[in-house]
Amino acid sequence: MRAAARPGGKVTIAEVAARAGVSKGSVSLAMNDKPGVSAATREKVLKAARELGWLPNQAARSLSSAATQVSNIGLVIARPARMLGLEPFYMEFVSGIESVLVERSYSLLLRLVHDVDEEIGVLDGWGRSKQISGSIMVDFTVDDPRVAPIAALGLPVIAVGHPDLTGGLPSVWTDDGAAVTEAVRYLAALGHRRLARVGGPATLGHSMIRSEAFAKAVADLNLEPGRILPTDFSGEQGARATRALLASAQRPTAILYDNDIMAVAGLSVATEMGVSVPAELSLLAWDDSQLCRLTHPPLSAMSHDVFAFGAEVTRRLMDLIDHGDAEVGAVPTPVLVPRGTTARAH
Amino acid sequence: MRAAARPGGKVTIAEVAARAGVSKGSVSLAMNDKPGVSAATREKVLKAARELGWLPNQAARSLSSAATQVSNIGLVIARPARMLGLEPFYMEFVSGIESVLVERSYSLLLRLVHDVDEEIGVLDGWGRSKQISGSIMVDFTVDDPRVAPIAALGLPVIAVGHPDLTGGLPSVWTDDGAAVTEAVRYLAALGHRRLARVGGPATLGHSMIRSEAFAKAVADLNLEPGRILPTDFSGEQGARATRALLASAQRPTAILYDNDIMAVAGLSVATEMGVSVPAELSLLAWDDSQLCRLTHPPLSAMSHDVFAFGAEVTRRLMDLIDHGDAEVGAVPTPVLVPRGTTARAH
Repeated sequence: MRAAARPGGKVTIAEVAARAGVSKGSVSLAMNDKPGVSAATREKVLKAARELGWLPNQAARSLSSAATQVSNIGLVIARPARMLGLEPFYMEFVSGIESVLVERSYSLLLRLVHDVDEEIGVLDGWGRSKQISGSIMVDFTVDDPRVAPIAALGLPVIAVGHPDLTGGLPSVWTDDGAAVTEAVRYLAALGHRRLARVGGPATLGHSMIRSEAFAKAVADLNLEPGRILPTDFSGEQGARATRALLASAQRPTAILYDNDIMAVAGLSVATEMGVSVPAELSLLAWDDSQLCRLTHPPLSAMSHDVFAFGAEVTRRLMDLIDHGDAEVGAVPTPVLVPRGTTARAH
Repeated sequence: MRAAARPGGKVTIAEVAARAGVSKGSVSLAMNDKPGVSAATREKVLKAARELGWLPNQAARSLSSAATQVSNIGLVIARPARMLGLEPFYMEFVSGIESVLVERSYSLLLRLVHDVDEEIGVLDGWGRSKQISGSIMVDFTVDDPRVAPIAALGLPVIAVGHPDLTGGLPSVWTDDGAAVTEAVRYLAALGHRRLARVGGPATLGHSMIRSEAFAKAVADLNLEPGRILPTDFSGEQGARATRALLASAQRPTAILYDNDIMAVAGLSVATEMGVSVPAELSLLAWDDSQLCRLTHPPLSAMSHDVFAFGAEVTRRLMDLIDHGDAEVGAVPTPVLVPRGTTARAH
């Protein structure tokens, strides 16, 4: 079965103007996204054109379209496609980006790649062919190989990551170290002496920063050395890590997770293994997406407004694109929101 | 604080060639994405260039870049930005799209808009300025105003929706009516006589198809008339609808949800209200994202591989772009996966 495009009827610009109750000039301006017509007029014209099934001759317009201002920003992610759908962080981050773009009629050019070399090539190509006005970069590692070539591109870029990782690129970050320290101090204040952390991939820069802060906070407070289990951020690996911790001889009394989906999985594993939360085990999620309020009991979390973070990063990129510079620096540190999964240790 | 782009050092093409162990011509071909060099050579050149912080003179290349083949497909969504991050369906759907695009080095141009008129304008603009090779369209309504103008554009498009909604556009869909009917029959076979459905927005075409199928299946089986509560698909509204149903005099013994996040919220509400699942209340989710396996008890669901669906839609769009036609029609109907939240009615 095959479906062909249906060509529109022979409708003239005069008919559209008449139906919209505006001049032919206004129709032309409105249909070509030119200044000079109000939003209300543009709306009327689009409605009339739509009702008549009319669109201006495409061949005639394709010549002028080369000069059309491209209003896209880029985001390249070097993670497997399936991970994207499992990780509430990226979805909320992208939603936050879109919340700023929608008001400026910008689009997001989203690309998944296999590795950082491919990412560099994509950004280079996008920049050269003027497909994007700037880009947001994520997932920095120690000695990240993208820093030097991207700086050389001269493309407006906001790097999401700690300046220790992002070299000279203008960067925006959350203070993960301070947040982890706060979480450990809170659990210690509740009397917990044996903590564990279910973390992200060991190679990611922000995972390393969190791991170091966790080890230091545990040592500073003279707690037992805390186990850290790296994962790929999936619920499955979060569940597996939780099972390993709860099955071990030296079972922790509190577990700190690096994202929400793993904390949700951890809560299910505790229920499945008959470990009462929070009576016998405290759990602390990270990001505080909607999920944390939907479990029973609701998850205590390091609350980080990921949607607002995505929006803030995008506003700064827009400043960089519009004015050539942007405010860089840390956004507010995630704050602890105690709910039903943390309690005094027995 | 301001960060400026760091210009690359003065590195020549000869140095890159020497470091990569290839000819200067190969460097040029590789860096300009031209045929004539193997993937391995291209990889070596990119690595050498990256290590030297070298990128070809951009001014010289910008002239030739106009001829660069644009490899993007479009996706316009007319929903509020925040909804995008809360709805596992779209994240898994986009992941599925990306899983096909990544193998073809295509990108996804993602745009949120306020309404369908803006969507038509965006697709028209993208098509004219050759920013996309084709587009995927979603969220069809009855008498959808996009059908005629989009058909007139002549842009390769795959419409995600039942042909009753998508007019003559080539469309791919899931048979929602058959799936709802299966769900109702299963619950009736378990002895449930009073069913309710927590649905999506009443204006969406696929919500209407599901509502009609639900009412018909309930009538055909002589069950009590089933209440249908429309929502915006959010967990909050799913929780509110569940509270309203469980607080009513004629409390249903089984609830069918239109997405997973609302079913997760419904399970929490039942626990909070002391209604035992599945002893007193059966719950059935829709989509069967990872969430369903993370709750306790795990959610029974109409299982729909959304990731595979996104991939399939994209493969068909690629066929349409490459060969001018594509297989259209229904993809496999969601199947019922009973887990811990459905049981015999008492």
